[in-house]
Amino acid sequence: MLDPEGLETALRAIGAERYHNRHPFHALLHGGKLNRGQVQAWALNRYYYQSIIPMKDATILGRSADLGFRRIWRQRIEDHDGNDDGPGGIERWLGLTGALGLERDYVVSGAGLLPGTRFAVEAYLHFVRDRSLLEAVASSLTEMFAPAIITDRVSGMLANYDFVDRAALSYFDKRLYQAPRDADFALDYVKREARLPQQQQLVLNALTFKCDVLWAQLDALYYAYVEPGHIPPGAFVPGQRA
Amino acid sequence: MLDPEGLETALRAIGAERYHNRHPFHALLHGGKLNRGQVQAWALNRYYYQSIIPMKDATILGRSADLGFRRIWRQRIEDHDGNDDGPGGIERWLGLTGALGLERDYVVSGAGLLPGTRFAVEAYLHFVRDRSLLEAVASSLTEMFAPAIITDRVSGMLANYDFVDRAALSYFDKRLYQAPRDADFALDYVKREARLPQQQQLVLNALTFKCDVLWAQLDALYYAYVEPGHIPPGAFVPGQRA
Repeated sequence: MLDPEGLETALRAIGAERYHNRHPFHALLHGGKLNRGQVQAWALNRYYYQSIIPMKDATILGRSADLGFRRIWRQRIEDHDGNDDGPGGIERWLGLTGALGLERDYVVSGAGLLPGTRFAVEAYLHFVRDRSLLEAVASSLTEMFAPAIITDRVSGMLANYDFVDRAALSYFDKRLYQAPRDADFALDYVKREARLPQQQQLVLNALTFKCDVLWAQLDALYYAYVEPGHIPPGAFVPGQRA
Repeated sequence: MLDPEGLETALRAIGAERYHNRHPFHALLHGGKLNRGQVQAWALNRYYYQSIIPMKDATILGRSADLGFRRIWRQRIEDHDGNDDGPGGIERWLGLTGALGLERDYVVSGAGLLPGTRFAVEAYLHFVRDRSLLEAVASSLTEMFAPAIITDRVSGMLANYDFVDRAALSYFDKRLYQAPRDADFALDYVKREARLPQQQQLVLNALTFKCDVLWAQLDALYYAYVEPGHIPPGAFVPGQRA
Protein backbone atom coordinates (compact mmCIF):
# COMPACT_ATOMS: atom_id res chain seq x y z
CA MET A 1 0.00 0.00 0.00
CA LEU A 2 1.35 3.38 -1.09
CA ASP A 3 0.46 6.68 0.51
CA PRO A 4 -1.08 9.21 -1.90
CA GLU A 5 2.27 10.85 -2.63
CA GLY A 6 3.83 7.43 -3.25
CA LEU A 7 1.06 6.67 -5.74
CA GLU A 8 1.77 9.93 -7.55
CA THR A 9 5.49 9.10 -7.65
CA ALA A 10 4.70 5.67 -9.12
CA LEU A 11 2.42 7.27 -11.74
CA ARG A 12 5.13 9.73 -12.71
CA ALA A 13 7.61 6.87 -13.07
CA ILE A 14 5.29 5.19 -15.59
CA GLY A 15 5.07 8.41 -17.57
CA ALA A 16 8.84 8.85 -17.51
CA GLU A 17 9.25 5.41 -19.08
CA ARG A 18 6.23 5.05 -21.33
CA TYR A 19 4.74 8.40 -22.32
CA HIS A 20 4.90 8.88 -26.06
CA ASN A 21 7.24 11.88 -25.92
CA ARG A 22 9.91 9.13 -25.86
CA HIS A 23 8.70 7.53 -29.09
CA PRO A 24 11.08 7.79 -32.08
CA PHE A 25 8.28 9.12 -34.30
CA HIS A 26 8.01 12.21 -32.13
CA ALA A 27 11.74 12.82 -32.36
CA LEU A 28 11.32 12.87 -36.14
CA LEU A 29 8.18 15.03 -36.02
CA HIS A 30 9.56 17.64 -33.65
CA GLY A 31 13.05 17.59 -35.13
CA GLY A 32 11.86 18.53 -38.61
CA LYS A 33 12.78 15.14 -40.08
CA LEU A 34 9.41 14.45 -41.67
CA ASN A 35 8.12 15.67 -45.00
CA ARG A 36 4.71 17.23 -45.51
CA GLY A 37 3.08 13.92 -46.44
CA GLN A 38 4.31 12.30 -43.25
CA VAL A 39 3.06 15.20 -41.14
CA GLN A 40 -0.28 14.89 -42.96
CA ALA A 41 -0.42 11.20 -42.05
CA TRP A 42 0.25 12.04 -38.42
CA ALA A 43 -2.41 14.79 -38.28
CA LEU A 44 -4.96 12.64 -40.14
CA ASN A 45 -4.55 9.66 -37.81
CA ARG A 46 -4.35 11.77 -34.69
CA TYR A 47 -7.64 13.41 -35.71
CA TYR A 48 -9.40 10.12 -35.02
CA TYR A 49 -8.03 10.11 -31.50
CA GLN A 50 -9.17 13.70 -30.99
CA SER A 51 -12.61 12.93 -32.38
CA ILE A 52 -13.44 10.27 -29.79
CA ILE A 53 -12.27 12.20 -26.72
CA PRO A 54 -15.71 13.73 -26.00
CA MET A 55 -17.31 10.28 -26.38
CA LYS A 56 -14.75 8.95 -23.94
CA ASP A 57 -15.49 11.77 -21.48
CA ALA A 58 -19.25 11.46 -21.90
CA THR A 59 -18.94 7.75 -21.11
CA ILE A 60 -17.08 8.59 -17.91
CA LEU A 61 -19.66 11.29 -17.11
CA GLY A 62 -22.44 8.75 -17.58
CA ARG A 63 -20.85 6.41 -15.05
CA SER A 64 -20.54 8.84 -12.17
CA ALA A 65 -23.32 9.23 -9.61
CA ASP A 66 -21.56 12.28 -8.14
CA LEU A 67 -23.02 15.58 -9.33
CA GLY A 68 -19.92 17.50 -8.25
CA PHE A 69 -17.69 15.18 -10.26
CA ARG A 70 -19.94 15.46 -13.30
CA ARG A 71 -20.02 19.28 -13.21
CA ILE A 72 -16.25 19.38 -13.37
CA TRP A 73 -15.77 16.52 -15.84
CA ARG A 74 -18.26 17.94 -18.35
CA GLN A 75 -15.92 20.87 -19.04
CA ARG A 76 -13.78 18.40 -20.98
CA ILE A 77 -16.60 17.72 -23.41
CA GLU A 78 -17.10 21.43 -23.99
CA ASP A 79 -13.39 21.96 -24.50
CA HIS A 80 -13.37 19.47 -27.36
CA ASP A 81 -16.82 19.95 -28.87
CA GLY A 82 -16.99 23.72 -28.45
CA ASN A 83 -19.71 26.00 -27.07
CA ASP A 84 -21.53 29.22 -27.94
CA ASP A 85 -18.32 31.18 -27.50
CA GLY A 86 -16.54 29.25 -30.21
CA PRO A 87 -15.33 25.99 -31.61
CA GLY A 88 -13.54 23.36 -29.56
CA GLY A 89 -10.47 21.21 -29.90
CA ILE A 90 -11.85 18.98 -32.63
CA GLU A 91 -12.54 21.97 -34.86
CA ARG A 92 -9.09 23.35 -34.10
CA TRP A 93 -7.58 20.02 -35.08
CA LEU A 94 -9.45 20.24 -38.37
CA GLY A 95 -7.83 23.66 -38.74
CA LEU A 96 -4.47 21.90 -38.56
CA THR A 97 -5.37 19.18 -41.07
CA GLY A 98 -6.81 21.85 -43.35
CA ALA A 99 -3.65 23.96 -43.09
CA LEU A 100 -1.71 20.84 -44.05
CA GLY A 101 -3.82 20.57 -47.21
CA LEU A 102 -6.07 17.65 -46.26
CA GLU A 103 -9.68 17.76 -47.37
CA ARG A 104 -12.01 18.17 -44.40
CA ASP A 105 -14.52 15.50 -45.47
CA TYR A 106 -11.75 12.99 -46.04
CA VAL A 107 -10.32 13.57 -42.57
CA VAL A 108 -13.71 13.35 -40.87
CA SER A 109 -14.68 10.21 -42.80
CA GLY A 110 -11.81 8.19 -41.34
CA ALA A 111 -11.41 6.52 -44.73
CA GLY A 112 -7.62 6.69 -44.81
CA LEU A 113 -6.95 5.74 -41.18
CA LEU A 114 -4.40 3.13 -40.28
CA PRO A 115 -6.13 0.10 -38.75
CA GLY A 116 -3.58 0.33 -35.94
CA THR A 117 -4.87 3.81 -35.14
CA ARG A 118 -8.46 2.68 -35.18
CA PHE A 119 -7.88 -0.30 -32.92
CA ALA A 120 -5.79 1.64 -30.40
CA VAL A 121 -8.22 4.55 -30.22
CA GLU A 122 -11.26 2.31 -29.88
CA ALA A 123 -9.49 0.29 -27.20
CA TYR A 124 -9.53 3.51 -25.17
CA LEU A 125 -13.29 3.89 -25.63
CA HIS A 126 -13.90 0.26 -24.68
CA PHE A 127 -11.66 0.63 -21.65
CA VAL A 128 -13.66 3.48 -20.16
CA ARG A 129 -16.88 1.59 -20.84
CA ASP A 130 -15.82 -1.78 -19.45
CA ARG A 131 -13.51 -1.00 -16.52
CA SER A 132 -14.28 0.64 -13.19
CA LEU A 133 -14.81 4.40 -12.97
CA LEU A 134 -11.56 4.63 -11.00
CA GLU A 135 -9.64 3.00 -13.86
CA ALA A 136 -11.43 5.14 -16.44
CA VAL A 137 -10.42 8.31 -14.61
CA ALA A 138 -6.87 7.02 -14.12
CA SER A 139 -6.53 6.35 -17.85
CA SER A 140 -6.82 10.10 -18.45
CA LEU A 141 -3.66 10.77 -16.43
CA THR A 142 -1.39 10.92 -19.45
CA GLU A 143 -2.40 14.57 -19.40
CA MET A 144 0.01 14.99 -16.49
CA PHE A 145 2.79 14.69 -19.06
CA ALA A 146 1.22 16.69 -21.89
CA PRO A 147 2.60 20.22 -21.32
CA ALA A 148 6.22 19.22 -21.96
CA ILE A 149 5.44 17.44 -25.21
CA ILE A 150 3.21 20.29 -26.40
CA THR A 151 5.93 22.87 -25.82
CA ASP A 152 8.47 20.74 -27.70
CA ARG A 153 6.02 20.06 -30.49
CA VAL A 154 4.95 23.63 -31.13
CA SER A 155 8.45 25.08 -31.04
CA GLY A 156 9.91 22.20 -33.06
CA MET A 157 7.24 22.27 -35.73
CA LEU A 158 7.31 26.05 -36.10
CA ALA A 159 11.09 26.07 -36.37
CA ASN A 160 11.32 23.20 -38.82
CA TYR A 161 8.34 23.19 -41.16
CA ASP A 162 7.48 26.05 -43.49
CA PHE A 163 4.06 24.45 -44.15
CA VAL A 164 2.99 24.92 -40.50
CA ASP A 165 2.32 28.23 -38.75
CA ARG A 166 1.17 29.38 -35.32
CA ALA A 167 -2.52 29.50 -36.35
CA ALA A 168 -2.40 25.90 -37.59
CA LEU A 169 -1.16 24.83 -34.17
CA SER A 170 -3.75 26.76 -32.15
CA TYR A 171 -5.14 23.47 -30.81
CA PHE A 172 -2.11 23.19 -28.59
CA ASP A 173 -2.37 26.71 -27.12
CA LYS A 174 -5.58 25.82 -25.31
CA ARG A 175 -4.33 22.41 -24.26
CA LEU A 176 -1.43 24.04 -22.43
CA TYR A 177 -3.76 25.21 -19.69
CA GLN A 178 -6.62 22.71 -20.12
CA ALA A 179 -4.47 19.61 -19.73
CA PRO A 180 -2.86 20.54 -16.38
CA ARG A 181 -6.23 21.63 -14.94
CA ASP A 182 -7.80 18.31 -15.98
CA ALA A 183 -4.81 16.28 -14.86
CA ASP A 184 -4.77 17.91 -11.41
CA PHE A 185 -8.41 17.00 -10.86
CA ALA A 186 -7.97 13.41 -12.03
CA LEU A 187 -4.80 12.97 -10.01
CA ASP A 188 -6.49 14.22 -6.83
CA TYR A 189 -9.37 11.86 -7.55
CA VAL A 190 -7.26 8.72 -7.88
CA LYS A 191 -5.10 9.66 -4.88
CA ARG A 192 -8.25 10.00 -2.81
CA GLU A 193 -10.26 7.05 -4.19
CA ALA A 194 -7.60 4.34 -4.54
CA ARG A 195 -7.63 3.23 -0.95
CA LEU A 196 -6.58 -0.40 -1.34
CA PRO A 197 -3.37 -1.84 -2.79
CA GLN A 198 -5.43 -3.59 -5.50
CA GLN A 199 -7.06 -0.30 -6.46
CA GLN A 200 -3.72 1.41 -6.63
CA GLN A 201 -2.46 -1.36 -8.89
CA LEU A 202 -5.48 -0.89 -11.16
CA VAL A 203 -4.74 2.84 -11.31
CA LEU A 204 -1.13 2.18 -12.30
CA ASN A 205 -2.23 -0.40 -14.87
CA ALA A 206 -4.74 2.05 -16.34
CA LEU A 207 -2.05 4.65 -16.91
CA THR A 208 0.20 2.01 -18.47
CA PHE A 209 -2.66 0.97 -20.75
CA LYS A 210 -3.22 4.56 -21.83
CA CYS A 211 0.48 5.09 -22.52
CA ASP A 212 0.25 1.98 -24.73
CA VAL A 213 -2.73 3.49 -26.58
CA LEU A 214 -0.67 6.58 -27.44
CA TRP A 215 2.54 4.66 -28.14
CA ALA A 216 0.87 2.12 -30.44
CA GLN A 217 -0.54 4.93 -32.59
CA LEU A 218 2.98 6.18 -33.23
CA ASP A 219 4.24 2.63 -33.85
CA ALA A 220 1.64 2.30 -36.59
CA LEU A 221 2.56 5.68 -38.09
CA TYR A 222 6.27 4.95 -38.02
CA TYR A 223 5.89 1.53 -39.62
CA ALA A 224 3.57 2.80 -42.34
CA TYR A 225 5.10 6.16 -43.22
CA VAL A 226 8.77 6.30 -42.22
CA GLU A 227 11.26 4.80 -44.71
CA PRO A 228 10.98 2.19 -46.09
CA GLY A 229 7.25 2.67 -45.34
CA HIS A 230 4.71 -0.16 -45.27
CA ILE A 231 1.33 1.45 -45.89
CA PRO A 232 -1.44 -1.11 -45.25
CA PRO A 233 -4.15 -1.70 -47.88
CA GLY A 234 -6.65 1.16 -47.98
CA ALA A 235 -4.73 3.62 -45.82
CA PHE A 236 -3.82 7.22 -46.70
CA VAL A 237 -1.10 7.50 -49.34
CA PRO A 238 0.61 10.92 -49.30
CA GLY A 239 0.31 12.61 -52.65
CA GLN A 240 -2.78 10.69 -53.64
CA ARG A 241 -5.01 13.08 -51.67
CA ALA A 242 -4.55 16.82 -51.74
CA MET B 1 -27.56 -5.46 -55.32
CA LEU B 2 -25.38 -8.49 -56.00
CA ASP B 3 -26.69 -12.00 -56.50
CA PRO B 4 -25.25 -14.54 -54.01
CA GLU B 5 -22.47 -15.57 -56.38
CA GLY B 6 -21.61 -11.93 -57.01
CA LEU B 7 -21.33 -11.39 -53.27
CA GLU B 8 -18.97 -14.36 -53.01
CA THR B 9 -16.87 -12.95 -55.86
CA ALA B 10 -16.67 -9.58 -54.10
CA LEU B 11 -15.65 -11.29 -50.85
CA ARG B 12 -12.91 -13.23 -52.62
CA ALA B 13 -11.63 -10.00 -54.19
CA ILE B 14 -11.22 -8.50 -50.71
CA GLY B 15 -9.26 -11.56 -49.61
CA ALA B 16 -7.06 -11.40 -52.70
CA GLU B 17 -6.10 -7.84 -51.85
CA ARG B 18 -6.12 -7.77 -48.06
CA TYR B 19 -5.65 -11.23 -46.53
CA HIS B 20 -2.47 -11.36 -44.46
CA ASN B 21 -0.77 -13.96 -46.66
CA ARG B 22 0.28 -10.85 -48.63
CA HIS B 23 1.95 -9.22 -45.63
CA PRO B 24 5.74 -8.86 -45.78
CA PHE B 25 6.12 -10.43 -42.32
CA HIS B 26 4.69 -13.69 -43.63
CA ALA B 27 7.12 -13.70 -46.53
CA LEU B 28 9.93 -13.50 -43.95
CA LEU B 29 8.34 -16.13 -41.68
CA HIS B 30 7.65 -18.67 -44.37
CA GLY B 31 10.85 -17.99 -46.29
CA GLY B 32 13.10 -18.82 -43.36
CA LYS B 33 14.28 -15.23 -42.96
CA LEU B 34 13.51 -14.94 -39.27
CA ASN B 35 15.61 -16.06 -36.34
CA ARG B 36 14.29 -18.08 -33.43
CA GLY B 37 13.58 -14.99 -31.31
CA GLN B 38 11.49 -13.46 -34.06
CA VAL B 39 9.52 -16.68 -34.53
CA GLN B 40 9.01 -16.74 -30.76
CA ALA B 41 7.63 -13.20 -30.91
CA TRP B 42 5.22 -14.21 -33.67
CA ALA B 43 3.99 -17.32 -31.82
CA LEU B 44 3.69 -15.45 -28.53
CA ASN B 45 1.60 -12.66 -29.99
CA ARG B 46 -0.48 -14.94 -32.17
CA TYR B 47 -1.30 -16.98 -29.06
CA TYR B 48 -3.35 -14.07 -27.81
CA TYR B 49 -5.41 -14.14 -30.97
CA GLN B 50 -5.92 -17.90 -30.64
CA SER B 51 -6.91 -17.54 -27.01
CA ILE B 52 -9.87 -15.25 -27.67
CA ILE B 53 -11.35 -17.22 -30.58
CA PRO B 54 -13.69 -19.31 -28.38
CA MET B 55 -14.83 -16.14 -26.60
CA LYS B 56 -15.53 -14.62 -29.99
CA ASP B 57 -17.48 -17.71 -31.07
CA ALA B 58 -19.37 -17.95 -27.79
CA THR B 59 -20.39 -14.31 -28.20
CA ILE B 60 -21.76 -15.10 -31.66
CA LEU B 61 -23.47 -18.21 -30.27
CA GLY B 62 -25.09 -16.11 -27.59
CA ARG B 63 -26.55 -13.77 -30.18
CA SER B 64 -28.31 -16.37 -32.33
CA ALA B 65 -31.91 -17.38 -31.63
CA ASP B 66 -31.61 -20.23 -34.15
CA LEU B 67 -30.98 -23.61 -32.54
CA GLY B 68 -29.75 -25.10 -35.81
CA PHE B 69 -27.21 -22.29 -36.23
CA ARG B 70 -26.04 -22.70 -32.64
CA ARG B 71 -25.55 -26.48 -32.91
CA ILE B 72 -23.23 -25.97 -35.87
CA TRP B 73 -21.43 -22.91 -34.57
CA ARG B 74 -20.64 -24.47 -31.20
CA GLN B 75 -18.27 -26.93 -32.89
CA ARG B 76 -15.86 -24.04 -33.25
CA ILE B 77 -15.66 -23.59 -29.50
CA GLU B 78 -14.92 -27.28 -29.04
CA ASP B 79 -12.27 -27.18 -31.76
CA HIS B 80 -10.36 -24.51 -29.90
CA ASP B 81 -11.06 -25.38 -26.27
CA GLY B 82 -10.92 -29.19 -26.66
CA ASN B 83 -13.23 -31.94 -25.49
CA ASP B 84 -13.11 -35.33 -23.76
CA ASP B 85 -11.27 -36.80 -26.74
CA GLY B 86 -8.39 -34.44 -26.39
CA PRO B 87 -7.07 -30.91 -26.30
CA GLY B 88 -8.08 -28.20 -28.74
CA GLY B 89 -6.37 -25.59 -30.84
CA ILE B 90 -5.33 -23.36 -27.94
CA GLU B 91 -3.48 -26.24 -26.29
CA ARG B 92 -1.88 -27.13 -29.62
CA TRP B 93 -0.72 -23.54 -30.00
CA LEU B 94 0.86 -23.78 -26.55
CA GLY B 95 2.62 -26.87 -27.89
CA LEU B 96 4.14 -24.64 -30.55
CA THR B 97 5.21 -21.90 -28.14
CA GLY B 98 6.63 -24.59 -25.82
CA ALA B 99 8.57 -26.17 -28.69
CA LEU B 100 9.97 -22.72 -29.42
CA GLY B 101 11.23 -22.53 -25.84
CA LEU B 102 8.72 -20.09 -24.38
CA GLU B 103 7.54 -20.66 -20.83
CA ARG B 104 3.89 -21.64 -20.77
CA ASP B 105 2.89 -19.34 -17.92
CA TYR B 106 4.55 -16.40 -19.61
CA VAL B 107 2.69 -17.02 -22.85
CA VAL B 108 -0.67 -17.46 -21.12
CA SER B 109 -0.16 -14.37 -18.94
CA GLY B 110 0.02 -12.07 -21.97
CA ALA B 111 2.70 -10.09 -20.14
CA GLY B 112 4.97 -9.66 -23.15
CA LEU B 113 2.32 -8.91 -25.77
CA LEU B 114 2.67 -6.00 -28.12
CA PRO B 115 -0.04 -3.40 -27.42
CA GLY B 116 -0.77 -3.47 -31.15
CA THR B 117 -1.63 -7.16 -30.86
CA ARG B 118 -3.86 -6.58 -27.87
CA PHE B 119 -5.77 -3.73 -29.46
CA ALA B 120 -6.29 -5.53 -32.78
CA VAL B 121 -7.41 -8.79 -31.15
CA GLU B 122 -9.76 -7.07 -28.74
CA ALA B 123 -11.20 -5.02 -31.60
CA TYR B 124 -12.37 -8.35 -33.02
CA LEU B 125 -14.11 -9.27 -29.76
CA HIS B 126 -15.78 -5.88 -29.55
CA PHE B 127 -16.87 -6.12 -33.17
CA VAL B 128 -18.79 -9.37 -32.68
CA ARG B 129 -20.37 -7.94 -29.54
CA ASP B 130 -21.39 -4.58 -30.96
CA ARG B 131 -22.29 -5.22 -34.60
CA SER B 132 -25.15 -7.22 -36.08
CA LEU B 133 -25.06 -11.02 -36.09
CA LEU B 134 -24.71 -10.91 -39.87
CA GLU B 135 -21.58 -8.77 -39.59
CA ALA B 136 -20.20 -10.95 -36.79
CA VAL B 137 -20.59 -14.07 -38.95
CA ALA B 138 -19.13 -12.29 -41.96
CA SER B 139 -16.05 -11.28 -39.98
CA SER B 140 -15.16 -14.98 -39.70
CA LEU B 141 -14.86 -15.30 -43.47
CA THR B 142 -11.09 -14.85 -43.50
CA GLU B 143 -11.15 -18.63 -43.02
CA MET B 144 -12.03 -18.88 -46.71
CA PHE B 145 -8.42 -17.97 -47.39
CA ALA B 146 -6.74 -19.97 -44.61
CA PRO B 147 -5.86 -23.27 -46.32
CA ALA B 148 -3.42 -21.69 -48.77
CA ILE B 149 -1.53 -19.80 -46.07
CA ILE B 150 -1.43 -22.86 -43.81
CA THR B 151 0.09 -25.03 -46.53
CA ASP B 152 2.74 -22.38 -47.28
CA ARG B 153 3.44 -21.86 -43.62
CA VAL B 154 3.89 -25.50 -42.65
CA SER B 155 6.06 -26.41 -45.62
CA GLY B 156 8.07 -23.18 -45.37
CA MET B 157 8.69 -23.43 -41.65
CA LEU B 158 9.62 -27.13 -41.77
CA ALA B 159 12.02 -26.55 -44.65
CA ASN B 160 13.67 -23.49 -43.16
CA TYR B 161 13.82 -23.74 -39.38
CA ASP B 162 15.63 -26.52 -37.53
CA PHE B 163 13.93 -25.41 -34.29
CA VAL B 164 10.46 -26.32 -35.62
CA ASP B 165 9.20 -29.84 -36.35
CA ARG B 166 5.97 -31.41 -37.55
CA ALA B 167 4.68 -32.01 -34.00
CA ALA B 168 5.17 -28.34 -33.09
CA LEU B 169 2.99 -27.36 -36.04
CA SER B 170 0.17 -29.84 -35.30
CA TYR B 171 -2.21 -26.91 -34.73
CA PHE B 172 -2.30 -26.35 -38.46
CA ASP B 173 -3.08 -29.98 -39.40
CA LYS B 174 -6.51 -29.73 -37.81
CA ARG B 175 -7.15 -26.27 -39.20
CA LEU B 176 -6.69 -27.57 -42.73
CA TYR B 177 -10.07 -29.29 -42.58
CA GLN B 178 -11.76 -27.23 -39.83
CA ALA B 179 -11.31 -23.88 -41.56
CA PRO B 180 -12.93 -24.81 -44.90
CA ARG B 181 -15.85 -26.51 -43.14
CA ASP B 182 -16.44 -23.41 -41.00
CA ALA B 183 -15.92 -21.03 -43.90
CA ASP B 184 -18.42 -22.90 -46.10
CA PHE B 185 -21.10 -22.62 -43.45
CA ALA B 186 -20.47 -18.92 -42.82
CA LEU B 187 -20.31 -18.15 -46.53
CA ASP B 188 -23.65 -19.89 -47.16
CA TYR B 189 -25.08 -17.97 -44.24
CA VAL B 190 -24.10 -14.51 -45.49
CA LYS B 191 -25.11 -15.34 -49.07
CA ARG B 192 -28.54 -16.34 -47.80
CA GLU B 193 -29.06 -13.63 -45.14
CA ALA B 194 -27.64 -10.53 -46.85
CA ARG B 195 -30.72 -9.72 -48.89
CA LEU B 196 -30.37 -5.95 -49.19
CA PRO B 197 -27.58 -3.91 -50.78
CA GLN B 198 -26.88 -2.29 -47.41
CA GLN B 199 -26.54 -5.70 -45.79
CA GLN B 200 -24.18 -6.86 -48.50
CA GLN B 201 -22.08 -3.77 -47.95
CA LEU B 202 -21.95 -4.51 -44.21
CA VAL B 203 -20.81 -8.06 -45.01
CA LEU B 204 -18.03 -6.78 -47.27
CA ASN B 205 -17.01 -4.20 -44.67
CA ALA B 206 -16.91 -6.89 -41.98
CA LEU B 207 -14.48 -8.99 -44.00
CA THR B 208 -12.34 -5.91 -44.68
CA PHE B 209 -12.34 -5.14 -40.95
CA LYS B 210 -11.24 -8.69 -40.15
CA CYS B 211 -8.46 -8.58 -42.74
CA ASP B 212 -7.30 -5.37 -41.01
CA VAL B 213 -7.30 -7.19 -37.65
CA LEU B 214 -4.95 -9.85 -39.02
CA TRP B 215 -2.83 -7.40 -41.01
CA ALA B 216 -2.35 -4.98 -38.12
CA GLN B 217 -1.01 -7.80 -35.94
CA LEU B 218 1.74 -8.42 -38.48
CA ASP B 219 2.42 -4.69 -38.85
CA ALA B 220 3.06 -4.56 -35.10
CA LEU B 221 5.32 -7.63 -35.22
CA TYR B 222 7.30 -6.34 -38.18
CA TYR B 223 7.83 -2.90 -36.67
CA ALA B 224 8.85 -4.30 -33.29
CA TYR B 225 10.98 -7.29 -34.26
CA VAL B 226 12.32 -6.95 -37.80
CA GLU B 227 15.52 -4.90 -38.22
CA PRO B 228 16.05 -2.27 -36.95
CA GLY B 229 13.37 -3.37 -34.45
CA HIS B 230 11.42 -0.97 -32.23
CA ILE B 231 10.21 -3.02 -29.28
CA PRO B 232 7.71 -0.99 -27.24
CA PRO B 233 8.16 -0.63 -23.48
CA GLY B 234 7.23 -3.82 -21.62
CA ALA B 235 6.97 -6.12 -24.64
CA PHE B 236 8.78 -9.45 -25.11
CA VAL B 237 12.50 -9.09 -25.75
CA PRO B 238 13.98 -12.20 -27.41
CA GLY B 239 16.76 -13.65 -25.33
CA GLN B 240 15.48 -12.14 -22.10
CA ARG B 241 12.96 -15.00 -21.67
CA ALA B 242 13.94 -18.61 -22.29
